[in-house]
Amino acid sequence: MTAGWVVVAGLGPGADTMVTPEVSAAIAQATDIVGYIPYVARIAPREGLTLHASDNRVELDRAAHALHMAASGARVVIVSSGDPGVFAMASALFEALEAAPQYLNTDIRILPGITAMLAAAAAAGAPLGHDFACINLSDNLKPFDLLARRIRLCAQADLAMAYYNPRSASRPDTFGKVLDILRTECAPHTLITFARAVSTPDQRIETVTLDMARDDMADMRTVVLVGNSATRKLGRFVYTPRKAL
Amino acid sequence: MTAGWVVVAGLGPGADTMVTPEVSAAIAQATDIVGYIPYVARIAPREGLTLHASDNRVELDRAAHALHMAASGARVVIVSSGDPGVFAMASALFEALEAAPQYLNTDIRILPGITAMLAAAAAAGAPLGHDFACINLSDNLKPFDLLARRIRLCAQADLAMAYYNPRSASRPDTFGKVLDILRTECAPHTLITFARAVSTPDQRIETVTLDMARDDMADMRTVVLVGNSATRKLGRFVYTPRKAL
Repeated sequence: MTAGWVVVAGLGPGADTMVTPEVSAAIAQATDIVGYIPYVARIAPREGLTLHASDNRVELDRAAHALHMAASGARVVIVSSGDPGVFAMASALFEALEAAPQYLNTDIRILPGITAMLAAAAAAGAPLGHDFACINLSDNLKPFDLLARRIRLCAQADLAMAYYNPRSASRPDTFGKVLDILRTECAPHTLITFARAVSTPDQRIETVTLDMARDDMADMRTVVLVGNSATRKLGRFVYTPRKAL
Repeated sequence: MTAGWVVVAGLGPGADTMVTPEVSAAIAQATDIVGYIPYVARIAPREGLTLHASDNRVELDRAAHALHMAASGARVVIVSSGDPGVFAMASALFEALEAAPQYLNTDIRILPGITAMLAAAAAAGAPLGHDFACINLSDNLKPFDLLARRIRLCAQADLAMAYYNPRSASRPDTFGKVLDILRTECAPHTLITFARAVSTPDQRIETVTLDMARDDMADMRTVVLVGNSATRKLGRFVYTPRKAL
């Protein structure tokens, strides 16, 4: 067997109705599914399909495993939540590939998905309707000083912002410090939307002004959307006009 | 009839296999489809469905028309390419709603889609795998000075960047001026990916270093992805590692 491949597929934020047909077709053709436990749990078991669920923080091992199986002819789908290219498994796969160049000729495809910020923005209205930045608040991946600098510069650029992974038990202070930075750079009436568990039965969307925002409004299932200076409320919606102020 | 609604739905970048089931279901329930001519052309005609195709630059009229029809009981889908919340019809609908508050109680839903930068990034590898900004180069919507300032600040923040609408016949110079700004702020080996007509039969992906980039590599069907300082090539792929340098 030499026709193995690796697909990195985005399952979207949670609802099965947000999984693209392209991704569903790849899963239907797979012999092996690799991924973080809750994402693999979304795949229906069937004969001929092996599910390899692994814990968080082993992304490189998981990617190397997928490349290894594909070299033996397996058709492997690495499942990612949201979009695999946004703070998810696609970069991890290429890091693993760079460390294992014997797999460079592997048939690899990345299939996009609905990333959390797009589903969150749609549920809230259109807060990302003008220029914006997308920032991972996890400081496993960069020093806090760099994160702080980025947030300051984006605020000075009057960009709306989407924050992924705002808060976790291992770094409970980061998001509070980010709110402090925003308070020095943005007006108190800047709108902040907390979108939790978007597209799932647990979905909760809450919009407050920056002066009322508290760090405990976010957890690891939350995407935070910060408006720009023109972002406004309209009935139950939040939106950013297309034109700059 | 009072059960009318308006859905703003993202058709993704072009391939029908990237349209979510949620969007397909809304289209199947619609009585009326509203949108820019090439997007409406993607909808299969059927009995009981009226297609209202309109030209570019009439977004507000189109949105107002949708709200008006819904008030009479129509089930209207406004079709957008990509994701409706990213430089597309969702903000235009809310602008129209703000101007016509008699429609504030309309049943409105925004359904996300695969926006062009995500499909382009997936086709290229994972160039948006770390923090990034998403910027519309169309200067119909903001003065060039503000655009220039945003690009400078994002480069100083070492963000990867995705540019929508980089170039058109009516403003042929903008993208060249943006490249000049990047050359003052970023290293000459910074990787720039030109992704044209992603997911369609015309798809073309080309990655060059900043010192080799020319403005005529982009047109209005191109999304431009600018890497950060860590973005690298690996075989036929371009990717940005998860960790900051």
